[in-house]
Amino acid sequence: MALIVQKYGGTSMGSPERIKNVAKRVARWQSQGHQIVVVVSAMSGETNRLIGLAREVQAVPDPRELDVMVSTGEQVTIALLAMALKGIGVDAKSYTGAQVKILTDSSHTKARILDIEERNMRADLDAGKVIIVAGFQGVDEHGAITTLGRGGSDTTGVALAAALNADECQIYTDVDGVYTTDPRIVPEARKLDRITFEEMLEMASLGSKVLQIRSVEFAGKYKVKLRVLSSFEEEGKETNGTLITLEEDSTMEQPIISGIAFNRDEAKLTVLGVPDKPGIAYQILGPISEANIDVDMIIQNVGHDGTTDFSFTVNRGDYERAKKILEESVKQHVGARSIIGDEKICKVSAVGVGMRSHPGVASQMFRTLAEEGINIQMISTSEIKISVVVDEKYLELAVRVLHRAFGLDQ
Amino acid sequence: MALIVQKYGGTSMGSPERIKNVAKRVARWQSQGHQIVVVVSAMSGETNRLIGLAREVQAVPDPRELDVMVSTGEQVTIALLAMALKGIGVDAKSYTGAQVKILTDSSHTKARILDIEERNMRADLDAGKVIIVAGFQGVDEHGAITTLGRGGSDTTGVALAAALNADECQIYTDVDGVYTTDPRIVPEARKLDRITFEEMLEMASLGSKVLQIRSVEFAGKYKVKLRVLSSFEEEGKETNGTLITLEEDSTMEQPIISGIAFNRDEAKLTVLGVPDKPGIAYQILGPISEANIDVDMIIQNVGHDGTTDFSFTVNRGDYERAKKILEESVKQHVGARSIIGDEKICKVSAVGVGMRSHPGVASQMFRTLAEEGINIQMISTSEIKISVVVDEKYLELAVRVLHRAFGLDQ
Repeated sequence: MALIVQKYGGTSMGSPERIKNVAKRVARWQSQGHQIVVVVSAMSGETNRLIGLAREVQAVPDPRELDVMVSTGEQVTIALLAMALKGIGVDAKSYTGAQVKILTDSSHTKARILDIEERNMRADLDAGKVIIVAGFQGVDEHGAITTLGRGGSDTTGVALAAALNADECQIYTDVDGVYTTDPRIVPEARKLDRITFEEMLEMASLGSKVLQIRSVEFAGKYKVKLRVLSSFEEEGKETNGTLITLEEDSTMEQPIISGIAFNRDEAKLTVLGVPDKPGIAYQILGPISEANIDVDMIIQNVGHDGTTDFSFTVNRGDYERAKKILEESVKQHVGARSIIGDEKICKVSAVGVGMRSHPGVASQMFRTLAEEGINIQMISTSEIKISVVVDEKYLELAVRVLHRAFGLDQ
Repeated sequence: MALIVQKYGGTSMGSPERIKNVAKRVARWQSQGHQIVVVVSAMSGETNRLIGLAREVQAVPDPRELDVMVSTGEQVTIALLAMALKGIGVDAKSYTGAQVKILTDSSHTKARILDIEERNMRADLDAGKVIIVAGFQGVDEHGAITTLGRGGSDTTGVALAAALNADECQIYTDVDGVYTTDPRIVPEARKLDRITFEEMLEMASLGSKVLQIRSVEFAGKYKVKLRVLSSFEEEGKETNGTLITLEEDSTMEQPIISGIAFNRDEAKLTVLGVPDKPGIAYQILGPISEANIDVDMIIQNVGHDGTTDFSFTVNRGDYERAKKILEESVKQHVGARSIIGDEKICKVSAVGVGMRSHPGVASQMFRTLAEEGINIQMISTSEIKISVVVDEKYLELAVRVLHRAFGLDQ
């Protein structure tokens, strides 16, 4: 008998029919002798509907009151799932975040979990009940309702799994696991049976958005066994999804590269000919950061003639704004020669813990791209990831050839 | 400075625009130096929408989970009204029933209030905040969310007024007070400045549905000054509505009759020729009650020849069912001669505490109806009410002539 936390997202809870399907799935797991805690999101679209209503009343809704309102989305789905389970003879009980209680700080709309009381849930589990907990919400020390911010239901699932010392936290979504790359681009893409937390973090932040990054960090920190599964697979045809593990699997041959991630939503900016002296990075990126623009890759090469070129990438939607800041507030201040940019770029990354012990991954990547005539504009590396910026038009080609070159097509 | 509890129903909270209007009204009262506690219902239609959703998932929704779900309707409106107030510079704070906390028993969907904690609200009121409380809901001793049943927001308002020892509980609705009768039938109907709780109870239960009966009983029991007002009157044109008082006003001439109430949704059944012996009433009404049919008037006249006739009225929708029960389960059992019925009847009542000290009201009522050729089929009286059952076609005429006869046209 295992204790399993299952999390179902808004699409899985999107209609009475789908909720009944989730109930059947939960019932099957319970009938196998497991104790089940289910975390649910609001019905898809409901959170946005509530936020829209709030904005009609107050242009910038009060955060405390917005949380009171938005938290009702999950309060509805916990009740509906409990009803669906009771309707098929499974004893179930719903819990709001406050009822659990999931104690958070008081940062409304983006609260952090501080503590989870497990006593009541444990008693109900021992009494044979399925526990259904509202995702995305908690309560602060004053009893005010808080929310964890977008996608916070994943975090609720992982936090509950940690608090209850669950055997596994299953995240049900509309895909059946984590793939070596996007199957829409590479038909040969394969589902990974397992992936490490580190790899998952790199994959997620690079655009393969299956899980909320924060919940993955959380799972890694608290050593929660995390599994991504599909909630749309038919009975009897379920796969095991992808297990996200804490450690590299030493029992089997480890592939060097686990996947090829990419992000087409990037733009590149370069400040040419800035004096090569201390403080220059801050002088360039300070104004960008103050304008609340997220910077992704940052590259500064060694200088010559006392000057250097400084490049970075931003979300494509921030490109014009960032360029204007550089032109108006930075260029003259730092004594740069000129500002150039390109919003038709993309980033392609090879991710894998195996590269730690396998030198030569980078050169293989560069050679593969060169053989296809793809020019590399920027390079950035971490311990388990190599990212390159290339012209947007090469995205699909680059992903495909790298996927094959690293043996992921199999 | 007074402490005022205001309750706004679902129609007043029906749209962002209307909620902003409520906020303006609340702000005006506060700017006059009063402390304000507002109780709100869900947006009109929302409770039914949620119940409908629940029924799609479970034919007969689990009561505990239905309460979890339905209570979200008011959780949304408290937040919206708090935002609307903050939007116009008034400090406000929302409270769910559990946050107050409004302690109830555990009878889900029809819970009774046991206790109200006033400490937190009092502190916020003293800090100058407007308090907004979700109507219709509470929390039981185990922390489960409960609801008070339909129309329970009025009860929440009165209970809060009692707990906080408020100077007045104002019930805002879509009419501007309690009338001497329905203005749609008698254009001369006048708004009453005041009415006693007893009269209000008789008026409400007889069809002049302005307030929930339960909240009126509650207000009477806890001596809460209750006032019915319109939430749709324009600024500067507000009236004082109708004050519902505990005692007869001894300082002014009391009208004998305060109003003419009526109910057209009734049907009459008579069991003819039953033996006039003990236990007969129970033998007739027992099976009716077991079928969950509410009985209103009950009349049994003195017998002759050892038999008597037994009559009662039911909601018109229950008529056929009740008749069938009498025919099949009662007639032979009690040895009745036959069963007759009429579903084209109505009940008209004159209500007034003044009739206690004024004999002759009944005879004036009967004479007035006789002069118009209206035959009285049944008569029933209480200390402050005389009700008659007449043919449905005479309803409007009976109400009009009685309204004039008792000087209510003025």
